[in-house]
Amino acid sequence: MAEVLATYLVHDKKGNLEKKAEAIALGLTVGSWTDLPQLEKEQLKKHKGRVVRVEEFSASARVDSYLEHKVTRGLIQIAYPALNFSNDFPAILTTVFGKLSLDGEIKLLDLTFDEQLKKHYPGPKFGIEGLRKLTGVYDRPFVMSIFKGIIGKDLTYLSDQLKEQARGTVDFIKDDEILFENELTPFAKRITEGKRVLEEVYEETGHRARYAVNLTGRTLELKEKAKRAVDLGADALLFNAFAYGLDTLQSLAEDNDIMVPIMAHPAVSGATTPSEFYGISNELLLGKLLRYAGADFSLFPSPYGSVAIAKEQALGIRDALTVNDSHIKKTIPVPSAGIYPGLVPLLYQDFGNDAIINAGGGVHGHQFGPAAGGKAFRQAVDAVLAGETLENYGETHEELKVALKQWGSVEVAK
Amino acid sequence: MAEVLATYLVHDKKGNLEKKAEAIALGLTVGSWTDLPQLEKEQLKKHKGRVVRVEEFSASARVDSYLEHKVTRGLIQIAYPALNFSNDFPAILTTVFGKLSLDGEIKLLDLTFDEQLKKHYPGPKFGIEGLRKLTGVYDRPFVMSIFKGIIGKDLTYLSDQLKEQARGTVDFIKDDEILFENELTPFAKRITEGKRVLEEVYEETGHRARYAVNLTGRTLELKEKAKRAVDLGADALLFNAFAYGLDTLQSLAEDNDIMVPIMAHPAVSGATTPSEFYGISNELLLGKLLRYAGADFSLFPSPYGSVAIAKEQALGIRDALTVNDSHIKKTIPVPSAGIYPGLVPLLYQDFGNDAIINAGGGVHGHQFGPAAGGKAFRQAVDAVLAGETLENYGETHEELKVALKQWGSVEVAK
Ligand SMILES: [Mg+2]
Ligand SMILES: [Mg+2]
Repeated sequence: MAEVLATYLVHDKKGNLEKKAEAIALGLTVGSWTDLPQLEKEQLKKHKGRVVRVEEFSASARVDSYLEHKVTRGLIQIAYPALNFSNDFPAILTTVFGKLSLDGEIKLLDLTFDEQLKKHYPGPKFGIEGLRKLTGVYDRPFVMSIFKGIIGKDLTYLSDQLKEQARGTVDFIKDDEILFENELTPFAKRITEGKRVLEEVYEETGHRARYAVNLTGRTLELKEKAKRAVDLGADALLFNAFAYGLDTLQSLAEDNDIMVPIMAHPAVSGATTPSEFYGISNELLLGKLLRYAGADFSLFPSPYGSVAIAKEQALGIRDALTVNDSHIKKTIPVPSAGIYPGLVPLLYQDFGNDAIINAGGGVHGHQFGPAAGGKAFRQAVDAVLAGETLENYGETHEELKVALKQWGSVEVAK
Repeated sequence: MAEVLATYLVHDKKGNLEKKAEAIALGLTVGSWTDLPQLEKEQLKKHKGRVVRVEEFSASARVDSYLEHKVTRGLIQIAYPALNFSNDFPAILTTVFGKLSLDGEIKLLDLTFDEQLKKHYPGPKFGIEGLRKLTGVYDRPFVMSIFKGIIGKDLTYLSDQLKEQARGTVDFIKDDEILFENELTPFAKRITEGKRVLEEVYEETGHRARYAVNLTGRTLELKEKAKRAVDLGADALLFNAFAYGLDTLQSLAEDNDIMVPIMAHPAVSGATTPSEFYGISNELLLGKLLRYAGADFSLFPSPYGSVAIAKEQALGIRDALTVNDSHIKKTIPVPSAGIYPGLVPLLYQDFGNDAIINAGGGVHGHQFGPAAGGKAFRQAVDAVLAGETLENYGETHEELKVALKQWGSVEVAK
């Protein structure tokens, strides 16, 4: 019988995790059990939640003192019969973390879907393999750069910035996630003008960067808008998945008229992920669920910058996005924020080939401008793949050399 | 010039709130400022975020010790020019709390919309006034009851439970929020069979309860499903607004073919609201934003039960839902969980006439059954309005008397 298995981290004031687990398993399914007549038990058995695991952790004095109460920390795992819900994210989240999210110190760490359930989720249309085919880039991490300071600027400014970035031979260029429909740089114009510029740079350099335009507006109009974007020649869509909901992302990913990669941005997810007591884990939200819902790219805070997450969480997201799965393609990890060329050896060590090196300030801030900034990143990647030190490679590659002088580099233990 | 004003609670490790505020105001709008040439400053001025207020709070040793770092606590208020975003919830949330939600210890406490912006939000179609007209009940709090233990049960069971609840003369009866489309009690059948039963009870007693059916399924199909519900004769819709997003709620509220009240359930909101460091405040999420988006009812954890929120938060939600506003109707507060008849005087004192007294166990657990349970609540309300003590009123009202014996009561200071 198909089930969804939910794993929770709890900090329980009543000190009895077994009892708490049993109360959850019943309360979120059939309601009561022990006092039911035998006949009813038979009928309800297949609807009843099941406690799969209860594990107590050692106490934390720091947590007890913060919560001003001695609490029992631990993991609880509950299996919810799929018979109880329709197989969609809103129903599953409401079942496993609807009312329960309001019930004291409890955090949803993971969800495991039966194969039978999982096959109804589309996963990425392109995935890492598809992005490799699309770009012809197989043997190295991708490099991406982000528009900077575009709000209030006109289409000429945007086009010029796009051109400079593309000349840096980056693979992808993304809109700022806070750029919405506006008169200065309208959505449709960004797509058509962007395409023109990128083709121009291709004629000039032989390199065709791909531009992810920000898909925004009212939820119920997104599908039509995405189709219009594709018709206009958009390369990819940037999408603030958590401002809209995973189910909406899924609908975009499922639509075969929207045949471009979708880049999920983590905006607003920080309202849900950072607490140790509440919310949903980064690994689940920015990892597994984004992948199941169909994001081709998942951007998340890198463990290196000032807007950072813990390294084990970033690697946990990476693993969730890329673990082998018979049904669902892999989503490419995009650890973002605080990235400069000197970090590439560390990024490569932590995220490997199948990742995107994504920078804003590290491209635009280059002393010789964004085109040099992009090149410095590509050179850093080449150095790492050639097994050379950045310093050494910089001797014959001016852009990298300058970048190393500007931002330094991080040594990596071999 | 139209703006959205955002208020944040921050716990800042760097100890300079002024600087942090300035970085937010620039970083989430024009990017940089001080070094710009005068001409560019002129162009960008109307796009630039503005620090409105910075207020430092006294330190908390408990917080410092938990965060293992001395932090500066305080409020920051930033005004974001409406010119920068389209006037919809996803764009506004992404602007004011997109990337920023990921940036350390920061919680979004409030948003203030210019009148100019606000008038594009529908607010409740019915609101408290509309619910009064619809029901003819003007002079007392409403009473509502919740289905119990319906998962795995068939339509006959559901109809019988609906009938018993309606016989208790409650005003509203709501589906369990974890009841989705299913073979035993399909959505359409719940509506038509529910209507039949409620009309039957009306013939019998002269009292017509109203049944809120749970609107579920895929986001992009909800509008059609809601219209079908209305065509089938649904009285009201229950909606897990936070499993879908506020923007989707808004689209349902804006549609004049969906001419029934919408009851917003707080499921999943606890992933965002409870932390003192992160997320979005209850008052904003379950109060102001639900109201702007068009919920006629807002359910939220009462301050009395085991699944509770702090009293000042519950009263803050109440205020946000009911404060006078020239454009937007009032949403009726529904403090829920842990409610029994003996709590009615306290509920009345805290929430007044324009609220809903909502119970599950406090109705179904009544020694004489749910019909008696509903009546006990109605009697408790009558007692309070008559200025009598529950004990006194119970002397001549059997159902209340029994309920007081079962659950006791809470005295209220006059
Ligand atoms: Mg950005
Ligand atoms: Mg419920």
